[in-house]
Amino acid sequence: MYMDRIRLKSLIGKIVSAEEAATHIHDGMTVGISGFTRAGDAKVVPLALARRAQEEAKPLKINLWTGASVGDEVDRILTEANVLARRLPFQAEPVLRKAINSGDVMFIDQHLSQTVEMIRSNQMGKIDVAIVEAVAITEEGGIVPTTSVGNSGTFAILADKVIVELNLAQPLDLEGMHDIYIPTRRPYREPVPVLRPQNRVGLPFIPIDPSKIAAIVITEKADNTSNVTAPDAETQTMADHIVDFFTHEMKHGRLTEKLMPLQSGIGSVANAVMHGLIKSPFHDLTMYSEVLQDSVFDLMDDGKMVFASGSSITLSPSKAQQFFQDIQKYKDKLILRPQEISNHPEVIRRLGLIAINTALEADIYGNINSTHVGGTHMMNGIGGSGDFARNSYMSIFVTKSLAKGGNISSIVPMVTHVDHTEHDVDILVTEQGLADLRGLAPRERANVIINNCVHPSYRELALDYFREACARGGQTPHVLEKAFSWHQNFKEHGSMKGAPVTQ
Amino acid sequence: MYMDRIRLKSLIGKIVSAEEAATHIHDGMTVGISGFTRAGDAKVVPLALARRAQEEAKPLKINLWTGASVGDEVDRILTEANVLARRLPFQAEPVLRKAINSGDVMFIDQHLSQTVEMIRSNQMGKIDVAIVEAVAITEEGGIVPTTSVGNSGTFAILADKVIVELNLAQPLDLEGMHDIYIPTRRPYREPVPVLRPQNRVGLPFIPIDPSKIAAIVITEKADNTSNVTAPDAETQTMADHIVDFFTHEMKHGRLTEKLMPLQSGIGSVANAVMHGLIKSPFHDLTMYSEVLQDSVFDLMDDGKMVFASGSSITLSPSKAQQFFQDIQKYKDKLILRPQEISNHPEVIRRLGLIAINTALEADIYGNINSTHVGGTHMMNGIGGSGDFARNSYMSIFVTKSLAKGGNISSIVPMVTHVDHTEHDVDILVTEQGLADLRGLAPRERANVIINNCVHPSYRELALDYFREACARGGQTPHVLEKAFSWHQNFKEHGSMKGAPVTQ
Repeated sequence: MYMDRIRLKSLIGKIVSAEEAATHIHDGMTVGISGFTRAGDAKVVPLALARRAQEEAKPLKINLWTGASVGDEVDRILTEANVLARRLPFQAEPVLRKAINSGDVMFIDQHLSQTVEMIRSNQMGKIDVAIVEAVAITEEGGIVPTTSVGNSGTFAILADKVIVELNLAQPLDLEGMHDIYIPTRRPYREPVPVLRPQNRVGLPFIPIDPSKIAAIVITEKADNTSNVTAPDAETQTMADHIVDFFTHEMKHGRLTEKLMPLQSGIGSVANAVMHGLIKSPFHDLTMYSEVLQDSVFDLMDDGKMVFASGSSITLSPSKAQQFFQDIQKYKDKLILRPQEISNHPEVIRRLGLIAINTALEADIYGNINSTHVGGTHMMNGIGGSGDFARNSYMSIFVTKSLAKGGNISSIVPMVTHVDHTEHDVDILVTEQGLADLRGLAPRERANVIINNCVHPSYRELALDYFREACARGGQTPHVLEKAFSWHQNFKEHGSMKGAPVTQ
Repeated sequence: MYMDRIRLKSLIGKIVSAEEAATHIHDGMTVGISGFTRAGDAKVVPLALARRAQEEAKPLKINLWTGASVGDEVDRILTEANVLARRLPFQAEPVLRKAINSGDVMFIDQHLSQTVEMIRSNQMGKIDVAIVEAVAITEEGGIVPTTSVGNSGTFAILADKVIVELNLAQPLDLEGMHDIYIPTRRPYREPVPVLRPQNRVGLPFIPIDPSKIAAIVITEKADNTSNVTAPDAETQTMADHIVDFFTHEMKHGRLTEKLMPLQSGIGSVANAVMHGLIKSPFHDLTMYSEVLQDSVFDLMDDGKMVFASGSSITLSPSKAQQFFQDIQKYKDKLILRPQEISNHPEVIRRLGLIAINTALEADIYGNINSTHVGGTHMMNGIGGSGDFARNSYMSIFVTKSLAKGGNISSIVPMVTHVDHTEHDVDILVTEQGLADLRGLAPRERANVIINNCVHPSYRELALDYFREACARGGQTPHVLEKAFSWHQNFKEHGSMKGAPVTQ
């Protein structure tokens, strides 16, 4: 029954089918939908739109703006239906990824805190229709989001029309978990009043003029669950390196047993590293992050973590089941914020976060490629990693030292694409070890990274490159004509070493 | 007479010669000195130290921390005396540059807002001695800086000992211009209360325990003046492009006639661009920048600019003379802040700055190299450009399209070093034209940059590269083995075209 979820009764008449709701969307429009890391995404109206596009003869192309990645089905089916002209600011779906890399879909890869700043200041065009998944609509017509906030608040506030996907499969208990704070316009903006991860500074719903609600669609479609893999021996070793390092920092008076508020990027490696804190001397931990993964709830269950602030909750199937069952237990320990606030440079710098993000590849000087395979092909997007790495108290990047059975070294002479410059990388960790790069010049960084993080099977090669580069001189020595030779080797011979590794 | 400048009379006994003051500095120490873009730097004690190092047989190596660049003489003579082991966070002196690039001096190139965060959190070791140039010492023992604030506040507060260079050549009228606000420690930090460029939020002096003042040296040595060159036809054209663009933005309701608070990087090109605003329809301009150059005062004299906040004042000889003469006229229109505050991400994002910085080279996708010639050799450092470009309302980079008589194109297929990723570059300007990159995907960015900004003599070459790259596909298409071919051409044949240009 959904009548208790639409509390502004004048809106009851707005209930329509997904197909009918989708008729508000026309060719050339910009559509902003809810969704952040597969959580709380609009699910049924986008799919109805895709069906219409496949049935109709006339062209139907839209610009799709989201919080971050949405459910696989949405990005896949919209891509297959050829509906997407432009997509931003993040995605993680194979079919869409292919269309992006072929140039069929224009993908704008943005720092996740910045999308709504660009929209608010009218620098990227206007939003025609917002589609927001909700657990309820309040008496005032306010929208109560579901498992993510993302960019939904600003999308709904700025859109000409709003379509609500009222999802009965999302528990009403989520209500009260959200904290919607929208910064005022510049140049007359006040400070963002978040001083602790626990601070509530906004409303528990998205405040909009209810007359903008053009349609309400009732759905019971569940979020996609996450596909993080369990920690393995290598990720456990990486977690151990980090715990040892934190312990060392504590001994030197630079950290306490509570550490600093933690941020962790999405994915199996970052999740496993966070998991490693369960068996650590640290306690009373807090999180100020974007996506809250399984490890956050495991740390809470274990009594290690006291509070977590994020923009979305993305869990494995079993963890999701447990979370929904025990939601009351977690409710006063969680806040879900707009991604502009979860990722806000102001708040990140103020709180002094320890930021842990994943590298696709790193170079011997500690520059990071988070996005482009081979320097050209987009994986997912930079996401919030730049917001956090630049502004944190301590920026840690993690990656396994090898990929493709040893044919790829994740640490190369020069990264083929730079998402994070050496200035924004304090600590680099592989299963081989940890490189503490703070206060080091590039040549010193290279020595520590090669010795501590590069896999032994590539260490001599890396040293050879570095020695040859140093002979040529410079603050950041390189042999330009060989800077990408490892990548060329991989392309031509199947291994960065020049000949494939047999395992 | 200097007695009116040392108002805490118990400190009179601390007056010593520069040589005697320098005896507080020993081998292995970390010394933090005042100075930002040649302004307000400690001048006589560092030189006395250099003399001692050259006279004594025993080793004398220090780590030298500053605000940004200091006077040429200081960096040059300390380098020649072989005193510098490590240097941060910025420099701009040829002899030191050579020592950095040869690996003799370890240079740590940092975002200028971040140095004191690292020191305050004890992540880079402690400061043994701070040397701060002052116009006066207050009754409380507070230090009144001269023409820059830079990192002097935190250096003096955290150092074991403080040496004051009381400079009688710096006018006492500077007193009252400074606004010393030091953020509290994390994680219990309050918002930085700067809401407008005009806001005063701190003290007019650096508050320290006066018992830490170990020596006072009286000096009359003037700041180095700046060596900005006058605007030329090309910089004037670049300024015109920017004024036209601002006018266009105003017509579309995205800017007002007051624009937004402006930031401008140091150097002739950025200075010339600011100069171009004199003959523009804009008025009541404000500045929230790091260094205040000639153009700021010209804009004030012309009634165009109403207020400027910075961390230093660096002027040409004639402008410096006029400024010191008319200082009362400017006094209520200027604030000098710690560089942590002038460059603070929190404040930059809150105010919504228009940031104008200079590129050494850019690539067809809009990534920027601000620092490394040929990808390896340090020029000056990233300075504050990252603080501003990342967090501004609008990030503009400027560069002339050609260098070395046309043998170098400033826009290349791939930059050899990345200081600013495409995410942080909204607008790219050369004398050829302006590329508005907001909301564009990389392939679209390349088209606009090649067509609008690349010099015609390189345009076909750039298009050839881009077409070949697109045929291989990707979000950011590249031909890796040719990505640096223009640089190789320049190295081998004296021109990026493969054969030198004859003019």
